[in-house]
Amino acid sequence: MAHWLLMQCPDERGLIYKVTGVLYAQGLNIVRNSEFVAREEGVFFMRTEFAGSFEAAALLAALRAALPPAASIRLTDNSKKDIVVLVTKEHYCLSELLVRHAFGELNANIRAVISNHEVLGDLTRRFDLPFHYLPHAGRSREQHEAEVLAQLAAYTPDLVVLAKYMRILSPEFVAPYANRLINIHHSFLPAFVGASPYAQAFARGVKIIGATAHFVNEQLDQGPIIAQSVIPIDHTQSAHEMAQAGRDVEKIVLARALQLVLNEQVFVHQNKTVIFD
Amino acid sequence: MAHWLLMQCPDERGLIYKVTGVLYAQGLNIVRNSEFVAREEGVFFMRTEFAGSFEAAALLAALRAALPPAASIRLTDNSKKDIVVLVTKEHYCLSELLVRHAFGELNANIRAVISNHEVLGDLTRRFDLPFHYLPHAGRSREQHEAEVLAQLAAYTPDLVVLAKYMRILSPEFVAPYANRLINIHHSFLPAFVGASPYAQAFARGVKIIGATAHFVNEQLDQGPIIAQSVIPIDHTQSAHEMAQAGRDVEKIVLARALQLVLNEQVFVHQNKTVIFD
Amino acid sequence: MAHWLLMQCPDERGLIYKVTGVLYAQGLNIVRNSEFVAREEGVFFMRTEFAGSFEAAALLAALRAALPPAASIRLTDNSKKDIVVLVTKEHYCLSELLVRHAFGELNANIRAVISNHEVLGDLTRRFDLPFHYLPHAGRSREQHEAEVLAQLAAYTPDLVVLAKYMRILSPEFVAPYANRLINIHHSFLPAFVGASPYAQAFARGVKIIGATAHFVNEQLDQGPIIAQSVIPIDHTQSAHEMAQAGRDVEKIVLARALQLVLNEQVFVHQNKTVIFD
Amino acid sequence: MAHWLLMQCPDERGLIYKVTGVLYAQGLNIVRNSEFVAREEGVFFMRTEFAGSFEAAALLAALRAALPPAASIRLTDNSKKDIVVLVTKEHYCLSELLVRHAFGELNANIRAVISNHEVLGDLTRRFDLPFHYLPHAGRSREQHEAEVLAQLAAYTPDLVVLAKYMRILSPEFVAPYANRLINIHHSFLPAFVGASPYAQAFARGVKIIGATAHFVNEQLDQGPIIAQSVIPIDHTQSAHEMAQAGRDVEKIVLARALQLVLNEQVFVHQNKTVIFD
Repeated sequence: MAHWLLMQCPDERGLIYKVTGVLYAQGLNIVRNSEFVAREEGVFFMRTEFAGSFEAAALLAALRAALPPAASIRLTDNSKKDIVVLVTKEHYCLSELLVRHAFGELNANIRAVISNHEVLGDLTRRFDLPFHYLPHAGRSREQHEAEVLAQLAAYTPDLVVLAKYMRILSPEFVAPYANRLINIHHSFLPAFVGASPYAQAFARGVKIIGATAHFVNEQLDQGPIIAQSVIPIDHTQSAHEMAQAGRDVEKIVLARALQLVLNEQVFVHQNKTVIFD
Repeated sequence: MAHWLLMQCPDERGLIYKVTGVLYAQGLNIVRNSEFVAREEGVFFMRTEFAGSFEAAALLAALRAALPPAASIRLTDNSKKDIVVLVTKEHYCLSELLVRHAFGELNANIRAVISNHEVLGDLTRRFDLPFHYLPHAGRSREQHEAEVLAQLAAYTPDLVVLAKYMRILSPEFVAPYANRLINIHHSFLPAFVGASPYAQAFARGVKIIGATAHFVNEQLDQGPIIAQSVIPIDHTQSAHEMAQAGRDVEKIVLARALQLVLNEQVFVHQNKTVIFD
Repeated sequence: MAHWLLMQCPDERGLIYKVTGVLYAQGLNIVRNSEFVAREEGVFFMRTEFAGSFEAAALLAALRAALPPAASIRLTDNSKKDIVVLVTKEHYCLSELLVRHAFGELNANIRAVISNHEVLGDLTRRFDLPFHYLPHAGRSREQHEAEVLAQLAAYTPDLVVLAKYMRILSPEFVAPYANRLINIHHSFLPAFVGASPYAQAFARGVKIIGATAHFVNEQLDQGPIIAQSVIPIDHTQSAHEMAQAGRDVEKIVLARALQLVLNEQVFVHQNKTVIFD
Repeated sequence: MAHWLLMQCPDERGLIYKVTGVLYAQGLNIVRNSEFVAREEGVFFMRTEFAGSFEAAALLAALRAALPPAASIRLTDNSKKDIVVLVTKEHYCLSELLVRHAFGELNANIRAVISNHEVLGDLTRRFDLPFHYLPHAGRSREQHEAEVLAQLAAYTPDLVVLAKYMRILSPEFVAPYANRLINIHHSFLPAFVGASPYAQAFARGVKIIGATAHFVNEQLDQGPIIAQSVIPIDHTQSAHEMAQAGRDVEKIVLARALQLVLNEQVFVHQNKTVIFD
């Protein structure tokens, strides 16, 4: 089992020394260490993977005693997190996650899949996972979101993954899952925000398209970016063909972003991410 | 010497047959042939590289006789075109072009460099090319553009390259050089249009930055895209460091776009390009 | 339905004219056309997608009459081809194909999966496809290959896909499936031929790894390359982590290569491929 | 001015704590810190950028006192290093370095260019740098290398850059510049070692080509890799066209590798590099 110490703090001299001093005093061995200082904001970030036996409360207490009061300190490990996946009709991001999950590559338990359409129920059940069909038709947005939130709450997920969930979420939906709600957007943000990015890309005649995995915040497509990737295209491709080609990029970027978050490699600060190797 | 036949025409059945028939009848050999049909607009594009001896007027006449009246037909070859480069203060795109030019890799004659600052005069003169310093200070935009246009006109360039020319051009400036005015924009358009794209990219926290070479039209950063390229970045890079890293992308993309245009591989249709191998 | 005319011929003047002449005379419309001349070998390749109603025998006869006797001419279309997939223990390439197949994205019928291990049977059956477990233990290579060939033959596949089949195939196995047997090799060939390419890559300290999809011929890892792709790596990644990261590259490259072959975009000439858009 | 502490040591518990403790005690501020443990060899690497005023001998003494005797410790800074560039006939890597040097982007002084041909003398002199023409014709390899070594020695360079120097170097030449001699190889090593890699790539029909910047050791093309990059190619490109396209990759990779070395971001261990951001 890997243990991680995650620390975020206003920058000051001696922070690495103080953290590593506590670990050294407790006989713990640092396996991997990463630090970063966001100069403009004066914020220090540190992620330490360590090994050895320890008592979590005592270690946390020692760290709090050694570090400035403003430091945010978190001890965690690589035990599996619970996730719920929200989808609409497109299968490929869900397929990617289900396959990785089935073969133990995800370091997470997919507890359930929730959708506003029935179409991906069959796929989900092939992998022996619960599928909840919560249609939005005939419901107000508030009603529908309340139903989805209730179903989500039943699983108390650590993370919620929007794997091509094509509904715009209200701030009320997003708030309880701040920095725990990951979306895949089918463009190289901030190019082509909003609907139909491939149609926009076709119309603009770009030579490269991409995908963006990001945390969701209150504003559509404006949350902290976790991962992006691109592929070249040319004039011969229609918007439909771009969409097909883009699928491979979308699903790989989403899976990679999810892995980064599951491995506790991602810090969020203001509207940006710090991502450690 | 390579000869190219460039044809653009409302699509109809038999166009390839008719063009190749004329070439065959005249004993000309097709070296490379590329076609494309823009389905939505119903437009056919064809670029044929051919070899053999011919009389241009006769060949053109035969083609016009064989093809629909709406066909746009152009016979050209790989003799060197004349270009003039406009710059401001940043050297790297100009350096790239000057070096390629000096070693005969550009298939163009750089006739002169024009700038609104003096700083790149020394570099230009190292390569024995005329440098025209036309300051904008103390002049209206109209006056300054008129001076630049007059200086350009003295060289009757086939193409004008904006190699980091940091002035916004009026439609009056652009019009006489329609589809002959190439700009490099230091972002992956349409992301980060306008000024300071690297600062915008830093603020948004993107994980990839890029550059775009495009023809200039009346609207800033809205012209037909010729080539784009990107590089990955991460949270450790400041806007300044992104700008440094982006230089290599910018200069290579601009050089590649220019080469495509010089090789007559680029068709412009509406606001998009068709680019043949 | 898309119809494709595939032609390969010693190069001579007038080939495009002759092919398009036959199509024009029969009232057929060219949707997309691609040609290439391999200069060094003097071979002409042409792929024409056309639309319209026709009688295949008559069209072929007209083409044969118009073209040199040495021309190889093939008429085909985008009806689904039959494929059989061979695997050993690793799931990710098979998963990729099964998912695409299940959602109709493959333009092929996966008739069966054959393996020398049992481990991927469960996955295959989740997608309602036959799985044949043909163990190699206790059999000579000849015996085992004979059993696999017999099982393959029962499905008369158009293509056989080695989706991480970790057995070296004899020339006798390969011969009947010349240019119809596609393999994914987990390195950027010709770097790291043979076994354990990720271990080789780690030992050599390369900064980029990749994958290669190729037709199989008699020599290990020497067949015509269809598609390659790469990802950057760094010193922090162990051979095992490289292998994990490489999975995404391998499966996407294999799927892309298979799609190119299914779409009849691939010509094989000597030991190389010509691939049309 | 940036100060860097570079440390390499058999791994043991507490190394980060000890280093940062010394810096903290001396009132120095850590600006950026990177560590890596090569697990298989049990070696710890650390690069610390720090700020503040200090006395180098005292700091080194304190570090030596705090760290195990086996630790290799180096204090350095970003003052300009001296480099000499060796070339043969191809200009583009040299051009890239000369231009960057001329505009202060290289963080190095190019003291001179040495070549076994005269052809790049004109380019070098345009940038006001000494060019030494040391022909190999009519000399034994030993004689020629002795002359080049003597000329190099006159400049006491920190680094020697082989910017398309097409001579194979003897171990005797290489030895005095161990880990200080950087070469650009025009292939994606270890694919296509030796001569004419583009011709080899053409013959093999690969779909991607690349370039590799590496330290030179006694064996041709076998030294520690610093940076690699690739570009896609296709069947339409001749070996000559691949070589042209490869130029942009080669020059950018070489410049990037040189920058990494000049910024003291590169550790060499056995035959591999550890490269810190």
